[in-house]
Amino acid sequence: MDPIFGLQLRVDRQGQEPLRVQLQRQLSHAIFEGRLKAGTLLPPSRQLAALLGVSRNTVMQVYEQLASEGLLLSKPGSGTEVRDLALPASQEPGRPDAGRWLKGLWHDLTLFAPPERALPYDFALGAADLSLFPFDHWRRCQVRALRQFETQGLDMDWAGYPPLRALIASFVSQSRAVSCNPGQVLVCSGAQQGFSLIGSALIEPGKTLVAMESPGYPMARRAFLAAGARVVEVPVDAEGLMVDALPGGVDLVYVTPSHQFPTTVAMSASRRLALLQQARARDFLIIEDDYDAEFQLGGQPIDALQTLDKDGRVLYVGTFSKCMFGDLRLGFVIVPDWLVQPLVLARQAADLHSPLVAQAALAEFIRQGALRRHVRAMGKQYRAKHQEVCQALAGCPWLVPVPLLAGVHMALLADEALDLEALVIRARALGVNVSHSGPFGLAAGTRPRHLLLGLGPIALEDIAPAMARLNAAVAEQIKA
Amino acid sequence: MDPIFGLQLRVDRQGQEPLRVQLQRQLSHAIFEGRLKAGTLLPPSRQLAALLGVSRNTVMQVYEQLASEGLLLSKPGSGTEVRDLALPASQEPGRPDAGRWLKGLWHDLTLFAPPERALPYDFALGAADLSLFPFDHWRRCQVRALRQFETQGLDMDWAGYPPLRALIASFVSQSRAVSCNPGQVLVCSGAQQGFSLIGSALIEPGKTLVAMESPGYPMARRAFLAAGARVVEVPVDAEGLMVDALPGGVDLVYVTPSHQFPTTVAMSASRRLALLQQARARDFLIIEDDYDAEFQLGGQPIDALQTLDKDGRVLYVGTFSKCMFGDLRLGFVIVPDWLVQPLVLARQAADLHSPLVAQAALAEFIRQGALRRHVRAMGKQYRAKHQEVCQALAGCPWLVPVPLLAGVHMALLADEALDLEALVIRARALGVNVSHSGPFGLAAGTRPRHLLLGLGPIALEDIAPAMARLNAAVAEQIKA
Repeated sequence: MDPIFGLQLRVDRQGQEPLRVQLQRQLSHAIFEGRLKAGTLLPPSRQLAALLGVSRNTVMQVYEQLASEGLLLSKPGSGTEVRDLALPASQEPGRPDAGRWLKGLWHDLTLFAPPERALPYDFALGAADLSLFPFDHWRRCQVRALRQFETQGLDMDWAGYPPLRALIASFVSQSRAVSCNPGQVLVCSGAQQGFSLIGSALIEPGKTLVAMESPGYPMARRAFLAAGARVVEVPVDAEGLMVDALPGGVDLVYVTPSHQFPTTVAMSASRRLALLQQARARDFLIIEDDYDAEFQLGGQPIDALQTLDKDGRVLYVGTFSKCMFGDLRLGFVIVPDWLVQPLVLARQAADLHSPLVAQAALAEFIRQGALRRHVRAMGKQYRAKHQEVCQALAGCPWLVPVPLLAGVHMALLADEALDLEALVIRARALGVNVSHSGPFGLAAGTRPRHLLLGLGPIALEDIAPAMARLNAAVAEQIKA
Repeated sequence: MDPIFGLQLRVDRQGQEPLRVQLQRQLSHAIFEGRLKAGTLLPPSRQLAALLGVSRNTVMQVYEQLASEGLLLSKPGSGTEVRDLALPASQEPGRPDAGRWLKGLWHDLTLFAPPERALPYDFALGAADLSLFPFDHWRRCQVRALRQFETQGLDMDWAGYPPLRALIASFVSQSRAVSCNPGQVLVCSGAQQGFSLIGSALIEPGKTLVAMESPGYPMARRAFLAAGARVVEVPVDAEGLMVDALPGGVDLVYVTPSHQFPTTVAMSASRRLALLQQARARDFLIIEDDYDAEFQLGGQPIDALQTLDKDGRVLYVGTFSKCMFGDLRLGFVIVPDWLVQPLVLARQAADLHSPLVAQAALAEFIRQGALRRHVRAMGKQYRAKHQEVCQALAGCPWLVPVPLLAGVHMALLADEALDLEALVIRARALGVNVSHSGPFGLAAGTRPRHLLLGLGPIALEDIAPAMARLNAAVAEQIKA
């Protein structure tokens, strides 16, 4: 019997796929799976067509297609036969060994879990307050940008949509006294990508030494580790990074001078100057993460560290995650001219560029003054929330707010008598989501001393009841 | 004279900034710039207030603020003085030396320039045809997703918006016969990020050896170089990557089996099997870049290489840049289970995640069948364009289209007599933007033999006149 008859070829006239496609798939599977052996002569197209009740043309197309894929061989004069594909002998699958493949770094890290299930009172870190965000306005900007993309196109620039770069330069010069021209601004998908691109451009794996604040922001640390950096931790006190404790041979220093993460202290003026002086004397660069300093809580915030830098040693990283919302995934870095093109190259290698439509929508939002209005409104909102927390703690000697100049989260310095790990667990059981500074790096053998309250998700009117529960948890622990 | 009078402090009642902010900025600048020296005693607040014509309260607030920033020292009983900031002695700025800082890689690379100024007839590579894209439908999906984000929030998953992961798994199983479950799908910002994350997870700088097609896709190469890979080039012939030419010790092999970039050949079935066999025998992994194979040009396209892989050695990279549009910046990788979490970790370190709003909009677009309809319509459109080019070349023995099973660009194999570099220049002068394969890697001493025509930007009705000009340029060169 012709081996083709053993295949039980079937075509379904009611099927969604054309008959040709049905036939071709069955034949190619039979060849790949070894059911049609190499050298097998296929029936002439006319014969197979008659057998299946399809047109001869259909069969001829399938044969041609399979020949073009290298599955069949058309031999002039002798018909069409199955090619020798050198199919592997049946054997156990040879799965790769994950242990051999993964770089060491990825064995050691754990995933930052998605936000916990919502608790009634949520002081989660890192999220912005969206209750006042002008979504309607933003939607109009987005729709308009998409229409412009559709009808006229949007100007492409790998470093960012040109009008947005100019608007960012002007926005940060006004809100943060950062001095730059638009050519120094590189749009990226959030501060995290800023760290990662700087790492890609500057970090030599296994060589470059990066100093980080301790406690400090773990995701920046990961970006530098992923680029192959050696990381050293430098303690933070009430004036910010302890500059005198920087080790020798440091290449890059990462700081959050406006609102240290997580302790919230603002770096003192003398420390700022010392850091810049050291950068010059010891030839290192500074990465300034200015993640939420647009929100002023009292007086004038300390200007950005970049403002004081006359040498071009500060690489400034900003984000729209706090002053807009995190899901926007847009941020920027402001760097000296010599670093712009390398960062653009690193960006191309990483993921090409940020969506022009989103960039154009943001440009429109800024141009119309909506960002400035929103930042002003949110500054007021965060001030009110901050005040509410402070009032609730007025009678509590166990948790003392760290003085705050700017930012979206507070740190409460805890009395030695308090066990913050237990307190956080108890508070969560009472429906209040708070954090402590433990996971953000500590000297060995010490216990976390900062309780952390993000002011984003929680509603203003929920703060009093939330703090009442937190105070109750504190009282319980003190009594026990 | 009290040194403060030398400062020429001024407040402007008509100014936009509050008087307090104006005064504070002037004082802090004077301190930072050394015009107010350490130890200088400031006038009592009442006196300065009278001098400037502001309220005493304003001056007191400014003093307090500057004290909190570490610029002033309030000495009980003796007034307020300027702190010793240990200002650096005036000196030349100490700019960093770019040469010392930049990693070698970024010295050698050049920027991929933004698309050239538009020519009347544009066969640019890499861009999708947007003329038939259902922008209105897409806009509705986007607006709906944004509203959902605003009112209910969207489910966060670092690996991607969960409904989108499931829809992608089902879409690729139908359109590309890729077999996977949603848990193996990682949403990323385009194929480029897919390469870069795989590199970040698997490439040991200076050790890992990556084999790439030559000629091949330069941006994938850059992603692997940026991760520190050693890259080796393996030639491509009419059956795709020459598997027998893979060198020893190779760890990763990057291929474009459905539609080789840039030569457009589909990898033959026997080569596919040989590659999978070698991967098992020599323990390497395969990165399959399946960038535009949704568009079928004739017959059934060859299934993805991943379809044949029983070992979990193929890492499949897909993108929505071609079947939607590039500015969407969404793509995906499909990998064996053991690699999912490391890639998510690498993604967190790189830029956290893709916007949920965009992911939810895309999920809606797919769920409503709009993507499938668009892919079908575009397949027809690209087939028509392909045919139009072939017809125009029917009488031309100098440029022969490479047979094409799928994809958005064509390669024309040029006769030895043609100088493609000169031809491309001449064609552009005639208003026709075409490319040749030269920039994509060649054996030393050889000349490019492929003329490349992207079928995205050009309108169907423009192809005949464009090809007439191209043919004229060919005729000129042959005659000369």
